Amino acid sequence: MNLDDLILVSVDDHVIEPPNLFEGRLSAKYQDKAPRLIERADGAMAWVYEGIEIPNVALNAVAGRPREELGFEPASLAQLRPGCYDVHSRVRDMDANGVLGSMSFPSFVRFCGQLFMNTPDREQAAAMVRAYNDWHIDDWAGSYPGRFIPLALPMLWDAEATAAEVRRVAAKGCHALTFSSNPFALGLPSIHTDYWDPVWKACVETGTVVCMHLGSSSQSPTTSPDAPIEVLYSLSPINLFEAAADVLWSPMFRKFPELRVALSEGGTGWVPYFLERVDYIYNHTRPWTKTDLGGRLPSEIFNEHVISCFIDDAVGIETRAHLNIDNVMWECDYPHSDTTWPHSPELVDKRLAGVPDADINKITHLNAIRHFQYDPFAHIPRELATVGALRRRAEGWDISPKPAAQRAAESAGTWRSLLSRG
Amino acid sequence: MNLDDLILVSVDDHVIEPPNLFEGRLSAKYQDKAPRLIERADGAMAWVYEGIEIPNVALNAVAGRPREELGFEPASLAQLRPGCYDVHSRVRDMDANGVLGSMSFPSFVRFCGQLFMNTPDREQAAAMVRAYNDWHIDDWAGSYPGRFIPLALPMLWDAEATAAEVRRVAAKGCHALTFSSNPFALGLPSIHTDYWDPVWKACVETGTVVCMHLGSSSQSPTTSPDAPIEVLYSLSPINLFEAAADVLWSPMFRKFPELRVALSEGGTGWVPYFLERVDYIYNHTRPWTKTDLGGRLPSEIFNEHVISCFIDDAVGIETRAHLNIDNVMWECDYPHSDTTWPHSPELVDKRLAGVPDADINKITHLNAIRHFQYDPFAHIPRELATVGALRRRAEGWDISPKPAAQRAAESAGTWRSLLSRG
Repeated sequence: MNLDDLILVSVDDHVIEPPNLFEGRLSAKYQDKAPRLIERADGAMAWVYEGIEIPNVALNAVAGRPREELGFEPASLAQLRPGCYDVHSRVRDMDANGVLGSMSFPSFVRFCGQLFMNTPDREQAAAMVRAYNDWHIDDWAGSYPGRFIPLALPMLWDAEATAAEVRRVAAKGCHALTFSSNPFALGLPSIHTDYWDPVWKACVETGTVVCMHLGSSSQSPTTSPDAPIEVLYSLSPINLFEAAADVLWSPMFRKFPELRVALSEGGTGWVPYFLERVDYIYNHTRPWTKTDLGGRLPSEIFNEHVISCFIDDAVGIETRAHLNIDNVMWECDYPHSDTTWPHSPELVDKRLAGVPDADINKITHLNAIRHFQYDPFAHIPRELATVGALRRRAEGWDISPKPAAQRAAESAGTWRSLLSRG
Repeated sequence: MNLDDLILVSVDDHVIEPPNLFEGRLSAKYQDKAPRLIERADGAMAWVYEGIEIPNVALNAVAGRPREELGFEPASLAQLRPGCYDVHSRVRDMDANGVLGSMSFPSFVRFCGQLFMNTPDREQAAAMVRAYNDWHIDDWAGSYPGRFIPLALPMLWDAEATAAEVRRVAAKGCHALTFSSNPFALGLPSIHTDYWDPVWKACVETGTVVCMHLGSSSQSPTTSPDAPIEVLYSLSPINLFEAAADVLWSPMFRKFPELRVALSEGGTGWVPYFLERVDYIYNHTRPWTKTDLGGRLPSEIFNEHVISCFIDDAVGIETRAHLNIDNVMWECDYPHSDTTWPHSPELVDKRLAGVPDADINKITHLNAIRHFQYDPFAHIPRELATVGALRRRAEGWDISPKPAAQRAAESAGTWRSLLSRG
């Protein structure tokens, strides 16, 4: 396949939330309670909610910055590439990278809305989640029909409320739920209990995929406090290795045979080893554990129910015969540190060299279209959806790296206006 | 290669310690302090040391038991296959499985001697470690020259004392040290400090390999207390995925360029993914972390210094082009639950089908011989060291599974005498 003919849909990107997110989306009772984006004395910005300050971390929005500058210091929106927070700029950044569609995970509310878990007034917390989801679906994704796969936050403290929210957003066309890769680690019932059954039931009934993003357990695996940062990065996929084991051996797929879980930003290269390992365990332990998987091997259950997602993973492609190619999806991870933006098509083209076109199309877009009931071609003709066509449209759009200070100076006074264009 | 022509050396087996281990190996001052094996009222046996009772767990010694019987209940030595604790029976079990050589990790003292860490009298603890190492090297391994790769315990609480012990046992021909995969998790300084430098220095000077066995961090990764046991088994390799990241990014290999670490029972199938991941991280983070690996990629450092060990790992063999084949070794894991005994040659033959003979020989024995300065052919002619020759010698040796109760009844009164045959 020619690079220009690829059609790319990324099932893992991130939105840095804009300041007007909650505006006009809450009842009078709760409008004043909504999170606010403040400018701090040191020039950085932070969200404030219930007295807690959540700084934007520069590493969360590195697209377009020279790599030498990255770090954990808090940042101002003015220092960031507008595509991080402004949907109009985002779509142009997607065009420039040849990306047709994107699913955008949240930032300051954390991967599955952990921020709202400790709100004493549960009704208030639920109102915040609904407002966030409405903004995400109607404003972020809704501004550009066909360009985004909407994604909803759960109400983590209440399975029934989450089930109701899954149904409410499904009616608005949203078929992805961001959920914790380990609710027990958040102080909630584990997925080995019956507690989450209403959520799984709602997901099955509405054809919604449960997306467990790396980090959504709120745990960062590391070895010791003095280990260098690279140890933490090296171990981050362990989060989802754990989630894979957890969902596989939980009763959820036996109780809900149509349920699907996506391991967002989990990678694929470890999956063949994992599948061999779980079958080995099953064969060695089943005589005494008496575990009943209904006549199937653990690897078969995984390959039917679990969707693997990767950014750039040569080993995963090399060993793909062990995977269910219908359940493998590509990710761009814009604007995080691991992103391949703005060179994603070149990397995808290189990695998928030798893969049959039919499988390339599944991995790059057809699987995402099917799993998330996402229909970009209802809005954008296929011939205008390719890498080549999108990049032609973006000609002249500046994608060169720019130091944060320079960007801040250039955008002073103008970045706010971007947000009121819509 | 013909199955009968394979030469198998296993770098991971386990000894269930016999009751006479400490007899005559301690000064009068400490002889009464030595761990004792007691028979409990419930018929199980347990070691007692410093007032703490450590039961034998049946799952630790399952070779020769029907799989239906396994579990965590404490066991009596009388219920176990004598090869678990009696070296003469062990060698016949090795013969029957076509295994020439074996490295045996400890059991009740824990993988790297954690049992002795909390002894208030440090001199006493050091005496126990030396006595254990002397028994292991002189009695267990020494009874059958050429059949065992000796392995020494460290004195975990004291790097200088461990360095001295490494030198002492090296003079007796022992070139393997069992060490924690994460000393920080044991309450000790991490491997990112300088604390362990004397140990690494002694290992380099004596040509000793640092073996980090799965579980030697004393941590069992799981997701929630109500997760089924299979989750824990599925996640056990994470212990060594963490260790791999830890040693790779620690300064130990930069400071000691000849140091080698073996990831015992770590598997190989995840390593290619891990290597791709760490190089990706390095390329993405190096501009701002300024980490200096001396001009080499993380994957190159891993492949030079880290030895991967596997029991049965089809994916690891399939993707071996990513590994340094000089640093891959085979394991039998006798008598643990994952062991392939007594059918190891059949499995090795099947898994290594298609691998060039030269690489088969490296994986099955040549690498172990080189890394551990182990010279079986000084004692056993090569033509008598093959699977075929060893199995011929074991003809008539009973390897059929036997329920624990039956074995206990049959061995009543006799199993103790095995240990005094000497």
